[in-house]
Amino acid sequence: MSFIHDDFLLDNETAKYLYHNHAKKMPIIDYHCHLSPKEIAEDKTFKNITEVWLGGKGFGDHYKWRLMRTNGVEERFITGNEPDFERFKKWADTVKYLFGNPLYHWTHLELKRYFDIDLLLNPDTAKEIYETANKKIANLSAIKFIESSNVEVVCTTDDPIDDLKYHKLIKTKKNYNFKVLPAWRPDVVVNIELDTFNGYINKLAKVVNFKIENLNDLEKALRLRIDYFHENDCRLSDHGIDQMVFLETTKAEVQEIFRKRQEGKKLSKEEIAKYKGYLMTFFGREYHRLNWVQQYHIGAIRDINKRQFNDLGKDSGYDAIQDNLIAEALAQTLNSLDATNQLPKTIIYTLNPRDFEVAITIMQAFQGGGIAGKLQFGAPWWFLDNEDGIEKQFRALANNGLLSKFVGMLTDSRSFLSYPRHEYFRRVLCNYIGKEVEKGRFPNDRALLGKLVEDISYNNAKNYFGY
Amino acid sequence: MSFIHDDFLLDNETAKYLYHNHAKKMPIIDYHCHLSPKEIAEDKTFKNITEVWLGGKGFGDHYKWRLMRTNGVEERFITGNEPDFERFKKWADTVKYLFGNPLYHWTHLELKRYFDIDLLLNPDTAKEIYETANKKIANLSAIKFIESSNVEVVCTTDDPIDDLKYHKLIKTKKNYNFKVLPAWRPDVVVNIELDTFNGYINKLAKVVNFKIENLNDLEKALRLRIDYFHENDCRLSDHGIDQMVFLETTKAEVQEIFRKRQEGKKLSKEEIAKYKGYLMTFFGREYHRLNWVQQYHIGAIRDINKRQFNDLGKDSGYDAIQDNLIAEALAQTLNSLDATNQLPKTIIYTLNPRDFEVAITIMQAFQGGGIAGKLQFGAPWWFLDNEDGIEKQFRALANNGLLSKFVGMLTDSRSFLSYPRHEYFRRVLCNYIGKEVEKGRFPNDRALLGKLVEDISYNNAKNYFGY
Amino acid sequence: MSFIHDDFLLDNETAKYLYHNHAKKMPIIDYHCHLSPKEIAEDKTFKNITEVWLGGKGFGDHYKWRLMRTNGVEERFITGNEPDFERFKKWADTVKYLFGNPLYHWTHLELKRYFDIDLLLNPDTAKEIYETANKKIANLSAIKFIESSNVEVVCTTDDPIDDLKYHKLIKTKKNYNFKVLPAWRPDVVVNIELDTFNGYINKLAKVVNFKIENLNDLEKALRLRIDYFHENDCRLSDHGIDQMVFLETTKAEVQEIFRKRQEGKKLSKEEIAKYKGYLMTFFGREYHRLNWVQQYHIGAIRDINKRQFNDLGKDSGYDAIQDNLIAEALAQTLNSLDATNQLPKTIIYTLNPRDFEVAITIMQAFQGGGIAGKLQFGAPWWFLDNEDGIEKQFRALANNGLLSKFVGMLTDSRSFLSYPRHEYFRRVLCNYIGKEVEKGRFPNDRALLGKLVEDISYNNAKNYFGY
Repeated sequence: MSFIHDDFLLDNETAKYLYHNHAKKMPIIDYHCHLSPKEIAEDKTFKNITEVWLGGKGFGDHYKWRLMRTNGVEERFITGNEPDFERFKKWADTVKYLFGNPLYHWTHLELKRYFDIDLLLNPDTAKEIYETANKKIANLSAIKFIESSNVEVVCTTDDPIDDLKYHKLIKTKKNYNFKVLPAWRPDVVVNIELDTFNGYINKLAKVVNFKIENLNDLEKALRLRIDYFHENDCRLSDHGIDQMVFLETTKAEVQEIFRKRQEGKKLSKEEIAKYKGYLMTFFGREYHRLNWVQQYHIGAIRDINKRQFNDLGKDSGYDAIQDNLIAEALAQTLNSLDATNQLPKTIIYTLNPRDFEVAITIMQAFQGGGIAGKLQFGAPWWFLDNEDGIEKQFRALANNGLLSKFVGMLTDSRSFLSYPRHEYFRRVLCNYIGKEVEKGRFPNDRALLGKLVEDISYNNAKNYFGY
Repeated sequence: MSFIHDDFLLDNETAKYLYHNHAKKMPIIDYHCHLSPKEIAEDKTFKNITEVWLGGKGFGDHYKWRLMRTNGVEERFITGNEPDFERFKKWADTVKYLFGNPLYHWTHLELKRYFDIDLLLNPDTAKEIYETANKKIANLSAIKFIESSNVEVVCTTDDPIDDLKYHKLIKTKKNYNFKVLPAWRPDVVVNIELDTFNGYINKLAKVVNFKIENLNDLEKALRLRIDYFHENDCRLSDHGIDQMVFLETTKAEVQEIFRKRQEGKKLSKEEIAKYKGYLMTFFGREYHRLNWVQQYHIGAIRDINKRQFNDLGKDSGYDAIQDNLIAEALAQTLNSLDATNQLPKTIIYTLNPRDFEVAITIMQAFQGGGIAGKLQFGAPWWFLDNEDGIEKQFRALANNGLLSKFVGMLTDSRSFLSYPRHEYFRRVLCNYIGKEVEKGRFPNDRALLGKLVEDISYNNAKNYFGY
Repeated sequence: MSFIHDDFLLDNETAKYLYHNHAKKMPIIDYHCHLSPKEIAEDKTFKNITEVWLGGKGFGDHYKWRLMRTNGVEERFITGNEPDFERFKKWADTVKYLFGNPLYHWTHLELKRYFDIDLLLNPDTAKEIYETANKKIANLSAIKFIESSNVEVVCTTDDPIDDLKYHKLIKTKKNYNFKVLPAWRPDVVVNIELDTFNGYINKLAKVVNFKIENLNDLEKALRLRIDYFHENDCRLSDHGIDQMVFLETTKAEVQEIFRKRQEGKKLSKEEIAKYKGYLMTFFGREYHRLNWVQQYHIGAIRDINKRQFNDLGKDSGYDAIQDNLIAEALAQTLNSLDATNQLPKTIIYTLNPRDFEVAITIMQAFQGGGIAGKLQFGAPWWFLDNEDGIEKQFRALANNGLLSKFVGMLTDSRSFLSYPRHEYFRRVLCNYIGKEVEKGRFPNDRALLGKLVEDISYNNAKNYFGY
C-alpha cells in the first residue's frame, strides 16, 4: 500500500464514509492565498520541480527552507545558485527526516496528486522522482494546476495601489473555469511606525492623483481605492496585525499624529496605537459599507534574524510566533465597529495557539444581527497548519462556538501546488468527526454529518463570501 | 439506542464499572452556583421549558443566547418578546448545529433526566418535545429539581449587604432535605475603579448603621457583615478577579487611596493595585479567622460588546476570556497571607486554559500545614466546562498535584436544571481514569479506584467544606 | 503482571519493537544534571532509602516534598527530624494517592530497577519495601548507581568560581567507566538586581586575583574562568533565565550601569535589561569562540513562599511556572549573537508549556550555517517532565522543526536514582512513534524508525556535544 492511500488520515469507518462520499467531491474556494495574478494571467509554466518547490532568493517556499537549514543544508543549496538537481537532492535528504512534520505529508500528497508518484522521497529515490516529475511538469501550468484541483475561486492578496490589471485580464479569458478575485491588504498604511510609511503615502497620492496632506486626504484616497477594488470584484480585505493595539482617541488627535509622522518624526507607542486603532475602525466601516469580509491575521513576529533578512529579504523563513497580549485590544477594536452597528463580517486568525480560546470567546461576544457565523475563527494558519493545529482549532471552535458554520480552509500559499492542503484539511475534518461519532459524542445521522462536511468544505464559504 | 444511553461518555469497561458502581450514587454538593435563594424559598414553578431554558431580557441562559446569535437567530427570539414556542423552535434549530459543543450534551441530558425525553432536539421534534416537557414542568418546581437530583448542599452567591432572609426562611423549612448556604461575594468593594464603588460604600454604611469615612470604618463594616454571614452558615467566599493585581503597600497609603476615591477622584493603576492587594489580604485573613474557604475566579473580560451590554445588561453573553499575566500577582497575594500563617483554604479557577499550569504550580508552593489539599485548582469554569476542559484540568492537576484530593465539580449555574453537569463531570472523570487504567498508567485496583471516584465526586468536598 | 512490566507505556507493537530493539540498549549521555561532583568523587554511600529519596532540610527531593505537603503531611516528616522510617511511611501514604502524577511512575521504576521490587508502595507495603531496599542500598553507591544505569557522560552544573577539583580528581580515577564534565552556570553574575551580586563579584575577584572595578575587568575575569572551565573539559553552559529580557545598549552604558551597581545603588528595569542583554551577548560570543553549547532555562518564578523559603532555603519546593512574555527578548538575544555570526549551538527550554510554539518558531529562524539541529528545543523540564509534557514537546517540535535531530533527554536531577527518567522518556518516545506509524502518519520503515529512536536516545547528543 502506498503511503498516500485512499484512506490516508482516515482512522475509522465514519471518517472514510464522510470523506469519500461528501468531502472529496466539493470544489475549492481558496479565499486567501498569495498567488501571483500575473502568473495566473500568463499561465506560467515551470522549468522543473526545483523551481516549483524551492524557488530561489526572493521567491520560494520558506517552509521548506527553514527545514533544510535545520537539517544542516548550506544556504547555497537553499536559496543559492547550486544546480537544480543538487538542490532537489538536499530537499530529498531533508524530507527523509521530516517525521511528524506536515511537510512530509504535503510533499507526498503533491507528488501523488500532480505527478502520480507513490515513492517516498529520499536521496535514493530523488533522481527517479526528479525525472518523472519534470516530465509531467513540461505539460503543466498555473491554470492546469488550478483547474485539475477543482478550484472555483482564488482570492489573491493585493496592494491598495495595485492597478489590478491582471485580474481584469483574467476576467476577459473565457476559457478559465475559475474566478480570480483581488483582496485588499493595506498593512503599509496601517504600520505608521515603519520606514515604509511616508514613501507609500506618496505612491498612493500619485495613484489617486491628488496630494495627501492630512487625514482627510488619506481617508478620501483609501476610499477611492477601496471603491476601485470593489468595482474589480474585491469583497475581502486582509490585515496582518503583528501586534494588536487599540487606544481610544479622537479624529483631531489622529490628524495631529499623521501630520507629525508626515514630518518624519518618531511616534510614541500611544500615538501608534491611537493611529492604528483609528484606522482599523475606518477600514472596518468601509468594509461594512460595501458588505466586504475583513480578515485579521494576528500575532506574527517578523524578520527576527536581521543578518539573513538583510541578505534574503522578507518571507525567507525568519518569522515566528509572537506572544503579545491581545484580549483587550481585540475586544476594543471589534467594539469600536459594533458600537455604531458597522461591524462587517470578520475572520480572526491567531498565530499563537494559546490565543485560540481568547479570540473565539471574544468573537462570540460580537455575533448577532441575524447573520449566521458573522464572526469566524479562521483555519489554522502558517505554523499551525498541521493535523494537531487543525484538530485543536475544531475543538476550540466547537467548544465555544458553532463548528457547523465554519467557512473552512484556505491555502495561504505562494505555490500552485498547495491545493492538497484542502484535501488534507478535509481528511482531518472527516477523521475528527468520525472519531466523535464513533465514541457517541456526535449523533450518528449520516445525512446531517454529510451536510456538515459539505458545508465546512465548501457551502459555508460560498454563502459567507457570496461568490 | 438513545443518544443519552447508560454508558454515554464511558468508552471502556473500567469507566463503566466506576461510573455505575461508584460515581452515580454519590450525592451532590454544589458548592458554587448562582441560583436565587428567593426562588428556592418560594419553590418557584415554571410556565414552560422556554422560561426555564431561555428566560428573557435580564435573566436567562447566556450560554444558549450566544449560540443562537451565532446561528443567525434574531435578537427578538433570543431575549425579546416573540411567542415562547417560536423562541423554543429557534433554539431547537440551533441545537441541530451544535456538533461538538457541550450544550448539545447538556441539552439532551436535561431532556432525558428531567423529562424522560429521548428525542434529539431539532426543528422537526421541537413541537413534540415542547409539549412533553411542558406537561411535566406543570408538576415540577425548584425544589423538585433539586431533590430529584440528589443534591445535599447548595451554596448560592450573595452580596455582602444581603440580609439573607431567604436563607433564613429556607432553614426553617423542615421539608427541604437539602441545605442552602450563602456565599460571600464582595467584588463591588474590591473594584474601587468602577463607578459603582462609592454608591455601594454608602449602601454598606446604611446596612451597618454607621458612617464609612475611612479604611478603618470600611474594615469594621466588612467584618460585621462577614460575621453576620458566618452566623447564617456561610463558610465560603468568592472573588471574581478579572485581572489579578498586587503591589506592596502600607495601610497608611491605602487609607489615602480610599479617601481619594471617596472624594470622587480617579485612581492610578498603581493605586488600584495597592488597594486591591490590600483588600484581598484583609479578606483572606478574615476568612482564615473563621475557617472559611476562599474562591478566586480569575481571568474574565466582561461586557465587551458595549452596545448590547447597554441594552441587555450584564451576564447577557458579552463576556470572554482575558489574557493578562497572573503569575506574580497571584504568588504575591497568596504569599501576603501565608507570610503570617493566615492563608485560608483557597480554590483557584482560571478562565484562560493557558494559565492552568501557572496557577497549579503556584498553588502547590503554598500547600502545607498538615491540611490535605488545602489549596485547590478548581473545576473547569464557564467557557472551559466541556469534556476537553475537564480532561485538561485532570491532567494538569495530576501532573503537578494530587488529583486524589480534588474537591470536584460545581454547576456555577443560574438554572435549576443544571445538575446533570455533575453527571457529565463524573462520566468524564470515570472515562479518564478508565483510559489510564486500561493503558496501565494507573494501578488496576478497583477498591482504590472506586474510592478515588467517590472522593472526587463527593467525599473530598464534604471534608473540605465541612458540610 | 507487575505494574512496571516489560511493555510499560508501550501501547502498540511498533512501540514495543522499537523500545526493546533500539532504545533500551543505548547508553545515556546525561548532559544536564545537578549531581554533586564531590559525591561522585567520593563514591557516596547511603544510610537508607529515606536519605536517598527524601533527604532533609537543605538537600532533598522537592518534587516529593511538594506532594507530601499536598497530602497533608506535616513538615517535620518532610524536611524535619522525625525517624527515617516514619518519614518513609508518610511518603508511602502519599504515593498511594499519586494517580496520574509522574512520581507514581518514577517511584516504581526506581524500586524495580535499583532494588528489584515489584510491590506498589503504600502504607501496607512500606515496611517490606523499606527493609528490602535498605539491604540493597548497603551494597550500592553513587558510582554503582551511575554505572548500572549505562551512563557514559554526566554533566554537572557548576559555579564559575568553582575550582573543579572534584572533576579533576574523577578524571584521575581509571576505574570509572563514565565521564563527569563540568558545566558553567553564571546566573549570579547575570542577576545584577539581586543582593548576591556585589558579594559575588568580590569572590570572583579573589579567584582571578585582580580587582574587578569595571566592566572590562569583569569580562576579563569571566573569560579567564571560562578558559579554566574549558581546560577542564567543560563544553556546556547553562543559564537560568527566570525572565527573558533584552534592550539595545552600548558598552559605555553598561559600564555605567555596572559602576552604579558596584556603588550599591538600585537599578531601573531598563538598566537591568540592558546589563543582562549585554552580558548574555558577551557569554554567547565566548561560548562560540570555544565551540561550547549554551542552554537557556526560561520561565521559573522562584521562592514565592517567603515564609517557607526563609526556613528551608532555595530548591525546597517553593518555585513555580512564570508567565512573562518571551518572544521579543528571546528573538533579540539570539539575533544579537547571530548578527556577527557568533551564535553558538543553543538549547532552549521553556518551563511554561504555552511558550513551546513561540520558542520553537523563534529558534527555527536562527537555524543555519550548515549545522544540523544547531538550535535545539530542550526536553520537557521540571513541572513538564511527565508523559503529557514529553508528548507535547515531540508534537510541537515535529510540527515546526526536525524531531529527528533532537538531542533528547537529561535528568536535571539531584539524585543518583533518577536515570530511569531516560528510560521513561524513551518509552514515551517509542510509544509516540508507534502510534503515528500505526495510524499511517509516519512511514512504516523499521530501519529508519530504529535509527530515529537510537539517534534521539543517544547518537544526536553524542554528535551535538562531541563527547
